[in-house]
Amino acid sequence: MSERVAQSALQAFISRSLSAVGMPESDAAKVAALMAQADVNGQDGHGVFRLPMYIKRIRAGGMNMTPTFKRLSERPATALIDGDNAMGHLVMHHATELAMEKARTTGVAWVGARMSNHAGPAALYATMPARENMIGLYLAVGSANHMPPWGGTDMLLSTNPIAVALPSKDYPPIVLDMATTVAAYGKVKTAAQRGEEMPEGWMIDRTGAPLTDPTRASEGFLLPIGGPKGYGLSLIFGILAGVLNGAAFGRDVVDFNADATTVTNTGQMILALDIAAFADPDAFRADIDEVWRQMKSSARMPGVDEIRLPGERMDRVRQERASKGIPLSDALRAQLDELAGELGVAPL
Amino acid sequence: MSERVAQSALQAFISRSLSAVGMPESDAAKVAALMAQADVNGQDGHGVFRLPMYIKRIRAGGMNMTPTFKRLSERPATALIDGDNAMGHLVMHHATELAMEKARTTGVAWVGARMSNHAGPAALYATMPARENMIGLYLAVGSANHMPPWGGTDMLLSTNPIAVALPSKDYPPIVLDMATTVAAYGKVKTAAQRGEEMPEGWMIDRTGAPLTDPTRASEGFLLPIGGPKGYGLSLIFGILAGVLNGAAFGRDVVDFNADATTVTNTGQMILALDIAAFADPDAFRADIDEVWRQMKSSARMPGVDEIRLPGERMDRVRQERASKGIPLSDALRAQLDELAGELGVAPL
Repeated sequence: MSERVAQSALQAFISRSLSAVGMPESDAAKVAALMAQADVNGQDGHGVFRLPMYIKRIRAGGMNMTPTFKRLSERPATALIDGDNAMGHLVMHHATELAMEKARTTGVAWVGARMSNHAGPAALYATMPARENMIGLYLAVGSANHMPPWGGTDMLLSTNPIAVALPSKDYPPIVLDMATTVAAYGKVKTAAQRGEEMPEGWMIDRTGAPLTDPTRASEGFLLPIGGPKGYGLSLIFGILAGVLNGAAFGRDVVDFNADATTVTNTGQMILALDIAAFADPDAFRADIDEVWRQMKSSARMPGVDEIRLPGERMDRVRQERASKGIPLSDALRAQLDELAGELGVAPL
Repeated sequence: MSERVAQSALQAFISRSLSAVGMPESDAAKVAALMAQADVNGQDGHGVFRLPMYIKRIRAGGMNMTPTFKRLSERPATALIDGDNAMGHLVMHHATELAMEKARTTGVAWVGARMSNHAGPAALYATMPARENMIGLYLAVGSANHMPPWGGTDMLLSTNPIAVALPSKDYPPIVLDMATTVAAYGKVKTAAQRGEEMPEGWMIDRTGAPLTDPTRASEGFLLPIGGPKGYGLSLIFGILAGVLNGAAFGRDVVDFNADATTVTNTGQMILALDIAAFADPDAFRADIDEVWRQMKSSARMPGVDEIRLPGERMDRVRQERASKGIPLSDALRAQLDELAGELGVAPL
């Protein structure tokens, strides 16, 4: 980590890069805002880090730059969106706004999407309702399979994530954003880059033995949290975000990183719940503050400095990066400079 | 396991026992059907096994035998029910029927409950929508705290479960019903009864060291699945099923087993999603069959006989027990005979 970049500068760079490959300006601005938000939030593996890959896919014709979203079906509290192979950020931003609009009347709404693509970190969408006195819940089919069913060796499942966000009063919002595997695949890649061993419990090989050498990652699988339980969660989340929407699941999942042209038909869903349908929102937010206080004030195990709540680290990083800028590694900076040169846009 | 009891006989026994302590007959019949269903499904820790404890609480005045359910708030797709301190089975059966009725129109519905009580296994309610071309999702605040926040030692969280059920065509329904801890507390009790060590990973003591002696369970805590991830899930499920509904959470949770009189104010929620709002239900069910086929046909690790899907074991047990009866241990049988004597009802 050498240099820091202001959020606004990063966002502008992402926006002009996407425009340069044919994305309409208003769409590019929207995607850039979401991607830069991921970096500000500290979700580094899902922000500008992904830009070169997105651009590669766009230039290869693997995503549609002039999509038309269709509502394939609709009820007062539900909708199924066809994303027309747009960038996932656009599809899920649209889906989340629709879910929030519906939930304001019906109390809760569930909007699913097919024909979407990688949309960045799950928390981006779950936190949108949380900013308006709602609770957000997001599920997605991951963009590559890294896990077999429990006891198996065929890669049929992804790290299918869940994110849930809800507002507090004086404390940060509670934001859970987690994959259903013990470690995300990005952590394995990072360990490999650094020449570090992985702890036991992250991966196993095809015989079921622990795999701790990250350079051998292709010989094994990510382990689900709680063994069969995490397998069950990944399966269920994949069905709710994928199968229900007519999106890819199981053998149909396209590895977004390895294949830049095949339509991924990615599936995601967002649920928005209007807190006012259950409680006075101010009272609820005060109740969540009380949850914070109870957890934070728990006696601690030896060696533990602080009890954390989901979203706490994200909030600290957000505040720090919003004011001081986003740190970029030299390697990523060089990659983005190279990209700028290729696209003929001003570098960061 | 010595003797088997027919489902109908078990159900009738539960019903007359509940009637004997003042529960109106139609309510007793409803609770008995759900409790016997838990036993038929193989969820032994949440069926008739709990009857003596329920009866103890009822006789102590800890549950209301003539409840009136109130809708504290309502929108087209949501409702908040005050269970009036009824048995949880009655509250959540009512809540689930309401959610299904709403979802038929709105596409999805979320019904929360406060002032409920222990309702048996989560799957009972998640599977109700699944029998009518819907998807069911149930969350609950567990009826005793067995887990601290991650890194802490104060028991502020329960094993807060999730159940999701969805229909297949030729295969059994997929039914995930899991606690957010590696092991349920019942498993610890069973190990203690049998004089067995627990495997590492189930519990830790107050210093964070593995605790494998189940007779020392009171000195430690259940471990969440995936460490901080399971802690996050338990926290979020508890907020959605408890705090949002104005039900007990954190320090306010009453240990249902240890205290028979204090009102528990248990919180639960059920979501019903009408599959027809997203897809042709027959086509969806066929798609779920294809999920079964893909998972079942995965190559397997050495020593693994079969890949299982969530709900598969439950379905096998259900078929076997529906035809051959429910096995009861001698100890439980003796306990139920004693209960029958106390209540002056015909024994099983």
